[in-house]
Amino acid sequence: MGSPQGRIPELRKDSVTNRWVIFSPARAKRPSDFKSKSPTTTQTQQQQDCPFCLGHEHQCAPEIFRVPPTSGPHWKIRVIENLYPALSRTLADPSAQYPILNPNPNPGSSVKVLGGFGFHDVVIETPFHSVQLSDLSPQEVGEVLLACKKRIEQLSTHDSIKFVQVFKNHGASAGASMSHSHSQILALPVVPSDVSARLDSMNEFFRETGKCSICEVRVEDLLIDESTHYFAIVPFAATFPFEIWIIPRHHSSHFHELDGAKAVDLGGLLKLMLRKISLQLNNPPFNFMIHTSPLQVTNSELPYTHWFLQIIPQLTVVAGFEIGTGCHINPVFPEDAAKVLREVQNSE
Amino acid sequence: MGSPQGRIPELRKDSVTNRWVIFSPARAKRPSDFKSKSPTTTQTQQQQDCPFCLGHEHQCAPEIFRVPPTSGPHWKIRVIENLYPALSRTLADPSAQYPILNPNPNPGSSVKVLGGFGFHDVVIETPFHSVQLSDLSPQEVGEVLLACKKRIEQLSTHDSIKFVQVFKNHGASAGASMSHSHSQILALPVVPSDVSARLDSMNEFFRETGKCSICEVRVEDLLIDESTHYFAIVPFAATFPFEIWIIPRHHSSHFHELDGAKAVDLGGLLKLMLRKISLQLNNPPFNFMIHTSPLQVTNSELPYTHWFLQIIPQLTVVAGFEIGTGCHINPVFPEDAAKVLREVQNSE
Repeated sequence: MGSPQGRIPELRKDSVTNRWVIFSPARAKRPSDFKSKSPTTTQTQQQQDCPFCLGHEHQCAPEIFRVPPTSGPHWKIRVIENLYPALSRTLADPSAQYPILNPNPNPGSSVKVLGGFGFHDVVIETPFHSVQLSDLSPQEVGEVLLACKKRIEQLSTHDSIKFVQVFKNHGASAGASMSHSHSQILALPVVPSDVSARLDSMNEFFRETGKCSICEVRVEDLLIDESTHYFAIVPFAATFPFEIWIIPRHHSSHFHELDGAKAVDLGGLLKLMLRKISLQLNNPPFNFMIHTSPLQVTNSELPYTHWFLQIIPQLTVVAGFEIGTGCHINPVFPEDAAKVLREVQNSE
Repeated sequence: MGSPQGRIPELRKDSVTNRWVIFSPARAKRPSDFKSKSPTTTQTQQQQDCPFCLGHEHQCAPEIFRVPPTSGPHWKIRVIENLYPALSRTLADPSAQYPILNPNPNPGSSVKVLGGFGFHDVVIETPFHSVQLSDLSPQEVGEVLLACKKRIEQLSTHDSIKFVQVFKNHGASAGASMSHSHSQILALPVVPSDVSARLDSMNEFFRETGKCSICEVRVEDLLIDESTHYFAIVPFAATFPFEIWIIPRHHSSHFHELDGAKAVDLGGLLKLMLRKISLQLNNPPFNFMIHTSPLQVTNSELPYTHWFLQIIPQLTVVAGFEIGTGCHINPVFPEDAAKVLREVQNSE
């Protein structure tokens, strides 16, 4: 066959991530032939031993809140502490920066060490083991998003918390250790490097153009679908095949600015995108990440920081080249992926 | 058990990568209990259908050179074109930067597109299917490294090639599509973002301290072993459990500065590290990457650019948090990993 597209490879650099991506159709099947080789299996039965299931609440780490708040045993969503947290919420002196080990004896050493203070929470999205996030109604997905918003607002009261990452791992090979549908919230005492790099890149775009790079990202042949307040695209320099960004139409720096109406609207579009990748790509393992802004941003940063939700179906292996360079090889051109996803018929 | 170390989580930021890493022993087994759950299987027989095997040379893409150069059918190493290259060596006008698609109609748009010019080569490390890189003698591993050096020197004659990434994927889940032992060389018309970020971070360290951050990285409790010209450590803020860096003792910006004697010395230390991770971690899939400097560096950059070889055994899953933030969660403290690796007895 040779190149299924008759297209030559191309390098694209995105103005949001500031990363080069190699688009290499010669390595690819036709875009419509991409399927997950290891689809996630959905259990249709309540599991006896799943601590996230209704009635097993006592097996979990402490609850932070439930939805509805006064629902007693009939909860819809629970936000709980992670039983195996990556960071510790009980460490003292969280904002102290101290050297524990000093590999660089010279005083100017820029090696930094911090005690691992932070919060690592779990959002149980449904009481039922057989239900996935995309099975919920737009209203119910919206309630999950509002639970994340509420938890971020609680976490933002801690002065030493600088950034909150909301993410979902679906499928064991995408990092989910529990098959019961859930998301995670990690609150960090630092702004991670990729977040800083994104802000720097968006700032550079703003200085050059006077515009927010995310506000400018929409282009018709990359568009998959849209709702009242959001649109879904395959980004121009997508890092992964069939990567999707869901973006607020109107400039908004922080995810937790969303209100009830927008949450339902976003819930509907997120549900639709998850169903599309499941139908088109054979229920692949996936991750999604909410790329919001650091909690403490200055007024001057607000015009160019714009949150979005990134969905990455797991179809390819990240190997030495990508680990070494941060430059990914994507076998599917974004406009081809967008066309395929636009045309998926949602049978529901 | 709780925390097997009795240690609290910790955040460390490396002065080379400029990334925060979360060390979270509460999630871990004892360091000595880490084993790969999906060890790579080594075939002991020559495969009938492997194009990399001796006698199957006609099934491969064109050869660039072989070692020894006049060895006829009795070659030890072959450097060939990749049959499915990520970039194209035949594209015209490689240094032109042109807009193919314009998602940002405003003239100041910083979206960049380049034609996918570049080279993607394969180094077949042995004629025999049953032999892995770590089975070769130090002298033979040195010859593989010298073949990489020679190919980089050839590639550096192209003005439009800015960076060359040498890497090895071992095991299918680490991205190896061929089980026959090989490395890859990708020559790029751009400097990838992670390489730029590394140089920026090393530059900042140099400005602050007047020293090269890699020259300063050595500390005794992180040391695994050393040879005449190199030492092997677990880096202070290792991104992955049991990650290893092999570093030239004396400041050197480019990998391809190595000579014959250093190649054999490095070959011996690389072989030893690969045998240690294989013995200790149950023959895990792994990647290694040679982190060299861009081909065109200025004299002012030379004092702080220092190449190293990074080995990453694949023991954990990269999930939504890591993809979203670039901040990894490492369950093994570097000084614990170094102790375990120091104590592995190489039975050979």
